Amino acid sequence: MLIQDAIRFIQEIDKLKSDCRKTLNYNQQREENTAEHSWHLAMSVIVFKDFSNFPNLDLLKAIKLALVHDIVEIDAGDVIVYKEDPEKYDREKKAAERIFGLLPQELSKEFHALWEEFEAKKTPEAQFVNALDRFLPMMSNHLNGGHTWKKFNVNHAQVLAKNQKAISSGSEELWKMASEMLEKSIAQGDLNR
Amino acid sequence: MLIQDAIRFIQEIDKLKSDCRKTLNYNQQREENTAEHSWHLAMSVIVFKDFSNFPNLDLLKAIKLALVHDIVEIDAGDVIVYKEDPEKYDREKKAAERIFGLLPQELSKEFHALWEEFEAKKTPEAQFVNALDRFLPMMSNHLNGGHTWKKFNVNHAQVLAKNQKAISSGSEELWKMASEMLEKSIAQGDLNR
Repeated sequence: MLIQDAIRFIQEIDKLKSDCRKTLNYNQQREENTAEHSWHLAMSVIVFKDFSNFPNLDLLKAIKLALVHDIVEIDAGDVIVYKEDPEKYDREKKAAERIFGLLPQELSKEFHALWEEFEAKKTPEAQFVNALDRFLPMMSNHLNGGHTWKKFNVNHAQVLAKNQKAISSGSEELWKMASEMLEKSIAQGDLNR
Repeated sequence: MLIQDAIRFIQEIDKLKSDCRKTLNYNQQREENTAEHSWHLAMSVIVFKDFSNFPNLDLLKAIKLALVHDIVEIDAGDVIVYKEDPEKYDREKKAAERIFGLLPQELSKEFHALWEEFEAKKTPEAQFVNALDRFLPMMSNHLNGGHTWKKFNVNHAQVLAKNQKAISSGSEELWKMASEMLEKSIAQGDLNR
């Protein structure tokens, strides 16, 4: 590997700081971008690791999944989880080929494999990171009066359909907290049944 | 550890997304924040690891250092590396006590230790992460016409004084690239000798 390849890749992925998500930062002043979200997610992996369903979690792999899982959005953009988007996977696959293809084979293969593993959601690490990836925006909505739920007309049944299995299969304890938050949001009038 | 403690901490560190640095994003549209910088740094650890001076680098620890090293800025704020600020360490130490103190003992101790290790810059992992932490803003300046150098009247000698040893002691190869970039910036009129 040439150091120039590493530099070119690091310059390229700086663009993730300009990929805007639907979720607000917890201070509610602006929508978060995907780079800072990926940091928050990687920190969550470390902080919540004892609450995963998997006692032998590979922490390094889980952190790498968190750091890498959304890089494809540089080309493919952010899509809210409640929107059906049958072309999303193909769009992201193309993006993975272009962006990870900037790197020499070994690292390119590793990042491709991490992204595919996250998408497949079959390994303990992918399930745990996915659970946190669903929990963080839900908590944002809980804290900010249901901003995204209201903006996109999302009700409680839709939140459950998209998150209950996804979160509980990574962390039962996290789902318990999440479902309590949802009940409070309903009581506060921030989420419709 | 209670899951509520983890949740409170993750809510608290969301504030790092609002801590503004002096460095521009590479697209030059705004200053980067410390959360997205920390993600970029953690990715750089993975991508540049073969260019570190240390063949047996502990990658998991190096990534954790990158993720955690600037969390204290939530309270202590960002200070440009060229400004003498004798109270910075004490301010950051207080911040570490408050913020990491939100967590139960085991994790609080781990994050404290990571922050102290980064500050001391004695272990291979801390030296390597520090090298990248200096290289990324330098590359931003190289790419954006010397924005921060011009704004804060920083010349080539000052850049060398603050970065040559810091970068080369983590990665000789990276310093070679960095010094070439500096020469080009001088030739382009973006950095004064």
